[in-house]
Amino acid sequence: MKDQFYSYIKNLQNQITEAFEKVDGSATFFEDEWNRAEGGGGRSRIIENGSVIEKGGVNISAVHGPLPESMQSYFKVDEVDFFACGLSLVIHPKNPMAPTVHANWRYFEMYDKTGNCIDQWFGGGLDLTPYYLFEEDAQHFHRQCKKACDIHHPDFYLEFKNKCDAYFHNPHREEARGVGGLFFDYLKEDKEFTIQDRYDFTTEIGNNFLAAYLPILEKRKSMKYSAAQRTWQEIRRGRYVEFNLVHDKGTLFGLKTNGRIESILMSLPPAVQWRYDHHPEEGSEEYNLVTVLKNPKVWV
Amino acid sequence: MKDQFYSYIKNLQNQITEAFEKVDGSATFFEDEWNRAEGGGGRSRIIENGSVIEKGGVNISAVHGPLPESMQSYFKVDEVDFFACGLSLVIHPKNPMAPTVHANWRYFEMYDKTGNCIDQWFGGGLDLTPYYLFEEDAQHFHRQCKKACDIHHPDFYLEFKNKCDAYFHNPHREEARGVGGLFFDYLKEDKEFTIQDRYDFTTEIGNNFLAAYLPILEKRKSMKYSAAQRTWQEIRRGRYVEFNLVHDKGTLFGLKTNGRIESILMSLPPAVQWRYDHHPEEGSEEYNLVTVLKNPKVWV
Repeated sequence: MKDQFYSYIKNLQNQITEAFEKVDGSATFFEDEWNRAEGGGGRSRIIENGSVIEKGGVNISAVHGPLPESMQSYFKVDEVDFFACGLSLVIHPKNPMAPTVHANWRYFEMYDKTGNCIDQWFGGGLDLTPYYLFEEDAQHFHRQCKKACDIHHPDFYLEFKNKCDAYFHNPHREEARGVGGLFFDYLKEDKEFTIQDRYDFTTEIGNNFLAAYLPILEKRKSMKYSAAQRTWQEIRRGRYVEFNLVHDKGTLFGLKTNGRIESILMSLPPAVQWRYDHHPEEGSEEYNLVTVLKNPKVWV
Repeated sequence: MKDQFYSYIKNLQNQITEAFEKVDGSATFFEDEWNRAEGGGGRSRIIENGSVIEKGGVNISAVHGPLPESMQSYFKVDEVDFFACGLSLVIHPKNPMAPTVHANWRYFEMYDKTGNCIDQWFGGGLDLTPYYLFEEDAQHFHRQCKKACDIHHPDFYLEFKNKCDAYFHNPHREEARGVGGLFFDYLKEDKEFTIQDRYDFTTEIGNNFLAAYLPILEKRKSMKYSAAQRTWQEIRRGRYVEFNLVHDKGTLFGLKTNGRIESILMSLPPAVQWRYDHHPEEGSEEYNLVTVLKNPKVWV
C-alpha cells in the first residue's frame, strides 16, 4: 500500500505542477530534494514571482523511522516505528480576486518492534481561501468535492465538509480561514471499508483537485484590481499566517519534531500586512467576505 | 503595591508615547480604551504610518478576576483570583537600519478565596531586534541595561541577559530573534529582597528604557537604504512573526485565554515577506547579522 500510494503522489505532483506552469505561463517550479537524517526525505517543488502565482509549493515526502516522542503522546502509543508519505500544496495567486488553495493527501503506517504493521490510515483534504467572495467559485469548488465524495459514500461530503469548517477556523478571530472544502483523517480499514477503499477514496479526491481549483484560477487570474484590494488581500493573508502558525497541527508538529522548516513554512504567503484593529466598511465586498467567514455556508 | 505599580506604568506610558511622538515628528498615538468582561481593562496607544515609526503600540492593562483554567495548570494552582497589570510596547521603525524594540514590565498577584494575597511577583524586560547590525547600537543598549541592573545587584545583568537570550530564541530557525537585552520573571519577596526592592528594580529598568533605545532610533532613522535592504527587513520581520505566534508565551496565553486580540497582536509588524529558503550571501551584512543571531554575543 505504501508503494502504491507513494507512486500515486509522485505522479500527481507531476500532473499538478505541469498544470500550474501552463496556467502561469511565465514561471516554472524549481525542485529541491532533501533527506531526513532519521530516515526518508522529500521532493519540494516551488514557484515564485510568476505572472499568476506569486508563491506556491507542491511538495511530496516519504519519511520513516522511530516515531518521535512528541508524536507518541499525540497518538497515545509507546515506542513504535512509523512510515508517513504525502503530498502537500499551497498556491498563493498574485491577483486578490483569485483565492489561495491548500490541499494535502497522506498515508500513515505504524509498526511494532518486530516490524509488523499495527495501524494504517489515510488523511487529507482541500480548502479554498478567497480574498473576495465569488459565490459561484465557492459553489464550483464544493460541487467538485461533493461529486468525488458521492462516488464513495452518500454521507462523506457533508461529514468531511463539516470537519473542514471545524478545522480551518481561527478561534481567536472567530472566523473561518476560508470557505472550506474537505478534511478527513484516520480513514482506516473497518467493517464497511477495506484499506483499498480508503486508498480509492483519497486518490479520487486527489484526482479531482485540478478540476476543483483550476477553472477558478483561470477565471480570476486576469481580473483588474486596485491597490486597496491588494492591501486587503495582504491583510487577509495575515489571518492565513495566524492560522498556520498558531493552530495548524501539521505546521506545529513539523516545527516541534525537527521537520524540514522550508517545506513546512512554504505555506506562508509572500507579502503580508498587519494593521491595528482593521475592519472593513459595513456593506463593502470585504465586509461581505468576513460575514461569510463568521458564518460558514452550505454551498451545494 | 498594585496601585503603586499601576500608577507608575500609567505615567511611564505617557512619558514613552510623548518621547516617540517627538522623534517621529509627524504621526501621533491614538488611544483605545477597552474593558475585559471578567474584570479590568486597558488603554492601548497605537501609532501607524509615521515618518519614523511604521507601526507601534504602547499598551497598559490591569485585569483581575478568577484565574482562567489554562493558567491554573500553568501556575500549578487551584481556583484562585488574580490581578495582573503591566505595560507592553513594540516599536517597528520604517527604516531597516533602525532596530525593532520590545519591552514589557508587569506585576502579578494571586488571592485565596477569602481575598488574602497568597503570591505576588514582578516580571519584564526589553530586547532589541536589528535588521542590520551596528555593534555600537547593541553595545549601547546592553550598557544601559547593565547600568540599571548594577544599581540593584552585581549578578542581575548577566543573569537576566542570559535569560533573554534563552527566551527570545526561534529553535526552528536555530537563531535568536535579535541581540537580546534583559528578561526576568517571578521576582518575589525572598531572604535578600523585599517586594519593594523588586518594585524598585523593575521600575529602574522601565525608567531606563528611553535612554537605552531612543539614541539608537535617532541615529538610524534617517539613514539611506535600498529597496533590497527594505526587502531584507521585511523577510526578517517574518522571523519576528514566527517567534511571536509559535513560541511567545504571552501571545499564546493571550490567544488561548480570550484576551483582547488587537492588543495582543499589535506586536506583529506592518509589512512582512516570506520567501522560500532565503539565505543571504556569505560575507554580506545580512549574513553577518544572521551569524550573530546564531551565536549570541557578550556585548558589554
